[in-house]
Amino acid sequence: MAAVGLTFVWRLLRSGPRPGLCGAGGREPGAAPRRAIGHGRVAVELDSSAGVAVMKMENLPVNSLSLDFLTEFLISLEKLENDRGCRGVILTSGAPKIFSAGLDIMEMYGKSAEHYAEFWKAVQEMWLRLYQSNMVTIAAINGSSPAGGCLMAMSCDYRIMAENPKYSIGLNETQLGIVAPFWFKDTLVNTIGNRATERSLELGLLYSPPEAHKIGLVDQLVPEEKIQTTAAAVMSQWLAIPDHARQITKSMMRKPTVDRLLAHRESDIQNFVSFITKDSIQKSLQMYMEMLKQRRG
Amino acid sequence: MAAVGLTFVWRLLRSGPRPGLCGAGGREPGAAPRRAIGHGRVAVELDSSAGVAVMKMENLPVNSLSLDFLTEFLISLEKLENDRGCRGVILTSGAPKIFSAGLDIMEMYGKSAEHYAEFWKAVQEMWLRLYQSNMVTIAAINGSSPAGGCLMAMSCDYRIMAENPKYSIGLNETQLGIVAPFWFKDTLVNTIGNRATERSLELGLLYSPPEAHKIGLVDQLVPEEKIQTTAAAVMSQWLAIPDHARQITKSMMRKPTVDRLLAHRESDIQNFVSFITKDSIQKSLQMYMEMLKQRRG
Amino acid sequence: MAAVGLTFVWRLLRSGPRPGLCGAGGREPGAAPRRAIGHGRVAVELDSSAGVAVMKMENLPVNSLSLDFLTEFLISLEKLENDRGCRGVILTSGAPKIFSAGLDIMEMYGKSAEHYAEFWKAVQEMWLRLYQSNMVTIAAINGSSPAGGCLMAMSCDYRIMAENPKYSIGLNETQLGIVAPFWFKDTLVNTIGNRATERSLELGLLYSPPEAHKIGLVDQLVPEEKIQTTAAAVMSQWLAIPDHARQITKSMMRKPTVDRLLAHRESDIQNFVSFITKDSIQKSLQMYMEMLKQRRG
Repeated sequence: MAAVGLTFVWRLLRSGPRPGLCGAGGREPGAAPRRAIGHGRVAVELDSSAGVAVMKMENLPVNSLSLDFLTEFLISLEKLENDRGCRGVILTSGAPKIFSAGLDIMEMYGKSAEHYAEFWKAVQEMWLRLYQSNMVTIAAINGSSPAGGCLMAMSCDYRIMAENPKYSIGLNETQLGIVAPFWFKDTLVNTIGNRATERSLELGLLYSPPEAHKIGLVDQLVPEEKIQTTAAAVMSQWLAIPDHARQITKSMMRKPTVDRLLAHRESDIQNFVSFITKDSIQKSLQMYMEMLKQRRG
Repeated sequence: MAAVGLTFVWRLLRSGPRPGLCGAGGREPGAAPRRAIGHGRVAVELDSSAGVAVMKMENLPVNSLSLDFLTEFLISLEKLENDRGCRGVILTSGAPKIFSAGLDIMEMYGKSAEHYAEFWKAVQEMWLRLYQSNMVTIAAINGSSPAGGCLMAMSCDYRIMAENPKYSIGLNETQLGIVAPFWFKDTLVNTIGNRATERSLELGLLYSPPEAHKIGLVDQLVPEEKIQTTAAAVMSQWLAIPDHARQITKSMMRKPTVDRLLAHRESDIQNFVSFITKDSIQKSLQMYMEMLKQRRG
Repeated sequence: MAAVGLTFVWRLLRSGPRPGLCGAGGREPGAAPRRAIGHGRVAVELDSSAGVAVMKMENLPVNSLSLDFLTEFLISLEKLENDRGCRGVILTSGAPKIFSAGLDIMEMYGKSAEHYAEFWKAVQEMWLRLYQSNMVTIAAINGSSPAGGCLMAMSCDYRIMAENPKYSIGLNETQLGIVAPFWFKDTLVNTIGNRATERSLELGLLYSPPEAHKIGLVDQLVPEEKIQTTAAAVMSQWLAIPDHARQITKSMMRKPTVDRLLAHRESDIQNFVSFITKDSIQKSLQMYMEMLKQRRG
């Protein structure tokens, strides 16, 4: 459940300099400045007339799911959930070339057991809230989306991905020697079925956009420049359905999967803590981080 | 779980005059008269040499699933089930352009709680009998098949649909602000898988024949004039399998789904009754019916 | 669950003389002799540098799953499982034109109830061990693979089939008037999904290689002469994943299915024994065997 974020970053960095990945300066030239509501890592824009919010993840460079980011994400989501003027959310990335790199390795190295438990609880909470949101949730996947990033996308109601051949998506945990927890697995089974999940998880596969579309991991591919307009158009189709009927139906589909985590939430946290505090795991995380520093330095 | 029948009718009527929809006179010109065994709403023809019966729904104009119709349907099905000379049933429609429009709104408006309970029990019974019939059941879907009509088709062993672009099939309940009950959902999941069901139910999608075929909601498309001969040919393939082995296998596949309804049958009835007796629902049903009368008048 | 082996053989034989099917002389002319480790029915070659073993079934003519063969298979598999130098197994056939014909009819005719119970326990054990092997298991399906042969292939992690149009694969039990047990069914559902399983099992379908590939029963088709090199290449991809993470993931995917059999193992044995000891079943097995003798004689 772990070192995915930074590992992935490291791979990106290793493949050559990409200015867009290095900080807040990564915006496309000529892009209009965007007013970021929230604490700065999640920019929320609510179009009240449409009842649709865009949540843009801006935890640069790669939208790692740190505890701070997850906390801010949860607060933003909760606010929208309680806002009767907001019926739908488009989840997308303000970071160039990446949707989210997944869990932040920094939260998993050299901390206390209490910290790990708190972090993992936040990861669980992110999934619980997103997966059973009463709002229509559409992922506009405008970059790579490994591990925890893929989980976020899968937790939405609909996935649109930019058909950029450099992007990939998948639960690649085993490639890093770690194991996706059972509720990551359940979410993948619900999305692409049992056999595709088996192969996907055991090999830690990252799929290109056409491959992801073929197996049903994403619902639709569009040219990168059309992803936001397409997301808005799809959203209006979903909002044509009366909320109440859609919400009950969504709950009927997803509640059994959610209930499985709720029934085992504490043991899932304990599993994570005892895994991440192992010497061997801490050592390998340390190695990753040193490699990363050298690359960045 | 409700107003599907008439709503659909209303939409059909609104789209222009279709003589075939207006009553018993809707038969194609030149069609040979057909001897209707039964009480007139379900015409059963048993070919004893083949051991195959054709059950033709003739509850014109749109084969709404009224209490009377369901009762007659169940009696006819039960007779065939107990007839050792009958090993297979082809379920099809005698109404032009429609297989079945689903539940009859007239059964859900202005009646007593007892009536609603009796009606819903009949709907459950239809599914229970059809879904686990010992006979080979093939749906020859020669018209549109929304909501309860789609459920009937899905409850058969095999679905052949006429490739007429005007026809559609699906569980469109949410489009009407209502919710398909869990066993409709279970049946759809068993047919097209979890993810396709999620999207299909939340959006209340009605699929064209090619779309329905692509996602596996129907097994085969044929030109409309070939649907009955194709159904007969497919039936003979299924009847080549020894009944006993096929029946045990079918039960092994479907019993867990059936058992879920049996375990919650009473609460499912109570859910329906408390939903349908709501003032808001009764009012919206009344509106539908008035619109319908105006169109018909 | 029974007469599959010989029945299939009989069909093969009926379709004309095929020298390769008649005994140990069935090797392709010019093929190099191969050193068979083990007791002669399962030739195991371990490439220690790669950590990969090839298990070649050589229970000629058709790799029927007899009690002796299953016992030897289990011993060989267990040895490899306990050999830390072996991380992956390629399961393939040394019999021409057939991977495995499934359960051996000879074990199911004219024996004692104790024998039937022992035989069925071995069939269960084969599946339990193979389906949850800690090693990477790849089926190189170089011939037809009905019934129990299909189960063996499905129990591996990955299936590569020779694209020879004469070969077929599937759980064809109902065609023979028998029923695949629930754990055969569960394994098929896990591989191709619920609806495809329903149709496949009720009709006892045997699929051509392209059909099997299309529904996901096999993962990859290759020209027959490339099947072993392809299996080795695929194996190296799977072995690139750290064993520990892959094994935990595999267990997470497959354990619930395994647990179902473990919970009902004794009743499953009793079911088999009471089925196979029926007079009607014994008579029909006798008929098959006499037909077979005549063909062979």
